[in-house]
Amino acid sequence: MGDTVFVLVLNAGSSSLKFNLFDMAKETSLAEGMAERIGLGEANLTSTIEGNKHRETLPLPTHKEALEAILEQLRATVLHETPIHAVGHRVVHGGPKYGDSVLVTDEVLQDIDHFAMYAPLHNPANALGIRTAMAAFPNVPHVAVFDTAFHHNIPDHARIYGIPYEISQKYGIRRYGFHGSSHSYVAARTAILLCRPLRALKIVTCHIGNGTSICAVHNGKSVDTSMGMTPLQGVIMGTRCGTIDPSVVEMLMEYEHLDYNGITDLLNKKSGLLGISGVSSDFREIERAAEQGNDRARLARDLLTYNVRQYIGAYATVLDGVDAITFTAGIGTHSTFVRAKVCSKLSFLGVKLDHEANEHGTGERIISTPDSRVTVTVVPTNEELMIARETVR
Amino acid sequence: MGDTVFVLVLNAGSSSLKFNLFDMAKETSLAEGMAERIGLGEANLTSTIEGNKHRETLPLPTHKEALEAILEQLRATVLHETPIHAVGHRVVHGGPKYGDSVLVTDEVLQDIDHFAMYAPLHNPANALGIRTAMAAFPNVPHVAVFDTAFHHNIPDHARIYGIPYEISQKYGIRRYGFHGSSHSYVAARTAILLCRPLRALKIVTCHIGNGTSICAVHNGKSVDTSMGMTPLQGVIMGTRCGTIDPSVVEMLMEYEHLDYNGITDLLNKKSGLLGISGVSSDFREIERAAEQGNDRARLARDLLTYNVRQYIGAYATVLDGVDAITFTAGIGTHSTFVRAKVCSKLSFLGVKLDHEANEHGTGERIISTPDSRVTVTVVPTNEELMIARETVR
Repeated sequence: MGDTVFVLVLNAGSSSLKFNLFDMAKETSLAEGMAERIGLGEANLTSTIEGNKHRETLPLPTHKEALEAILEQLRATVLHETPIHAVGHRVVHGGPKYGDSVLVTDEVLQDIDHFAMYAPLHNPANALGIRTAMAAFPNVPHVAVFDTAFHHNIPDHARIYGIPYEISQKYGIRRYGFHGSSHSYVAARTAILLCRPLRALKIVTCHIGNGTSICAVHNGKSVDTSMGMTPLQGVIMGTRCGTIDPSVVEMLMEYEHLDYNGITDLLNKKSGLLGISGVSSDFREIERAAEQGNDRARLARDLLTYNVRQYIGAYATVLDGVDAITFTAGIGTHSTFVRAKVCSKLSFLGVKLDHEANEHGTGERIISTPDSRVTVTVVPTNEELMIARETVR
Repeated sequence: MGDTVFVLVLNAGSSSLKFNLFDMAKETSLAEGMAERIGLGEANLTSTIEGNKHRETLPLPTHKEALEAILEQLRATVLHETPIHAVGHRVVHGGPKYGDSVLVTDEVLQDIDHFAMYAPLHNPANALGIRTAMAAFPNVPHVAVFDTAFHHNIPDHARIYGIPYEISQKYGIRRYGFHGSSHSYVAARTAILLCRPLRALKIVTCHIGNGTSICAVHNGKSVDTSMGMTPLQGVIMGTRCGTIDPSVVEMLMEYEHLDYNGITDLLNKKSGLLGISGVSSDFREIERAAEQGNDRARLARDLLTYNVRQYIGAYATVLDGVDAITFTAGIGTHSTFVRAKVCSKLSFLGVKLDHEANEHGTGERIISTPDSRVTVTVVPTNEELMIARETVR
């Protein structure tokens, strides 16, 4: 190895661009940050570089200017004259084709465009981010790391939907699953916390954040997950509805006179915790309102924990038992309430939460008692590091 | 009691009319049968009256002629000169209003018409059946027994969907649940088989038939169930899709150019086991094809058992443990394969199936071993008797 390899990880949203710069010799992050409100007048660029926080407000008309502003900061600080050796890109949907990370080519870019049919809110932004970065760094390898890849080999009966087979085949309609880098990372960390080999463990990983998905990890492999063809299915999320009766979709389109874009917008951006509570999509605000007696906030909060707990039970039947339950992402890492509530009716599984560790610990840790038959862990996720590792590989 | 009370139970579909005549002093069925293909040229009328089977092919243009033909048979045999004292009607959807059975009035009929918005394939037929029977028996009480009533008091967090609250309120969009008479009946029978009081039991009842729903029964009450606002949600069924990613509904409407009626028809009548297998909606044919190596039939079969098993696990977390799992309805009562497959990965719950009892017994029975921590039972359902009981009450 010897020489240091600098990998820039990019995660582009429709009006945002997150970045993280890794020194892969040490697997440490040198700089990270985010441009927000790109193309919306005044944009924000926030970053933490070598421990120093920066915050700027400036016009960033497109992702191109956002990337330039980010690079300017990096070159003025950590990067000096050192080049970036490779760029890793988070891509939400790899469709039926990509079961692994891939070096970006024209064909790959076209596929990412095409798979926007399954992730209309994410893939176009991801493709835009890649094109912008390829223009800025034409001579380094760009790697696409797909959210769906970790779930690529879940069994057929766990991914088929009950619609006519010919239609499923025609459009590639099936469960794909998302947050793969996160589930994969926290499952591996949990095995380390348990001092047991990942390849002999049954783990349910709970990625609970603005987007939420639960995953059954058997011997290190995803065997089922709660998100579906798109990131809309499963647990209720910040603004996404999660699983609902399919008839509700039909009924809303008919009674509220919504077309494809209208219903997509309603179910993806106006539903979920925000839609039920009327308060916010931010779970901290929901928790606060619920504590203050807001019934709708309480309902939203309770539905989230209820959904997560049911998936743990469902996946226990997929794995025939559970060795560990892992909480990660914004809510999973920070909400002691959610973890306690989710674990509250799992005594039949042998779950015993250590309330002291749940409430007062920080960072990666075990939060179940030593005699708990299921080990419960908190593992802050690190999708960016996973993407950087994939890029180097 | 003394005098015998005769109750006629009717269950009207769009082109069918099932009947069952009970002597409620003994709670025995004197006659039962079904008119099929009403209004479709040659109709079939099959019945079993005092043990004798009858089968006729005759034109039955409407439900009126079907009911007349049924009554003619009954009056020529068991009924003689005795009148029918009351008529009980199965009604699929009671909307937000009916948490109990109700004497039919004009207002009730209007409500049943209105709640067709939640059960477009069922309620109109049910209302037609009631109107036909009220014309034939204008002077006896008619009682509507709702499939939804048993689930009327499931907690708010188990019935709300993650869509905007105002929209849920506006249209009464929430989980209602179905097969209430069946879940209620088999839970009560299971308590008797266990020689334990229903009010102290945690039971998961699995009604697996052409329509399938799973129910978490806590102390005799439904606390959650797999069907939703309509009978489309949950486990994959004969021709219904069960739970799918809501985005799939949007995508199908957009890409296959389907309107409300088109998508309702596709997801309710062309999907499910039929849609995946391409073989049949009849599970016996699916099982046969699967055994003969048909991959799509095998996939359909495996998805059904996978779905059911996951609901058992999910409801174990709702109940914090399970005392009994009950199988009922056509597939649940008759498929030894389904029961064995569903129970195959429940050893973490302490389920031990008695394979001899599962494969060779008949009728109402326990099919787990004496040392199984969870008692598994088979209970043939009797929705008609429940409806007759409700009618008398």
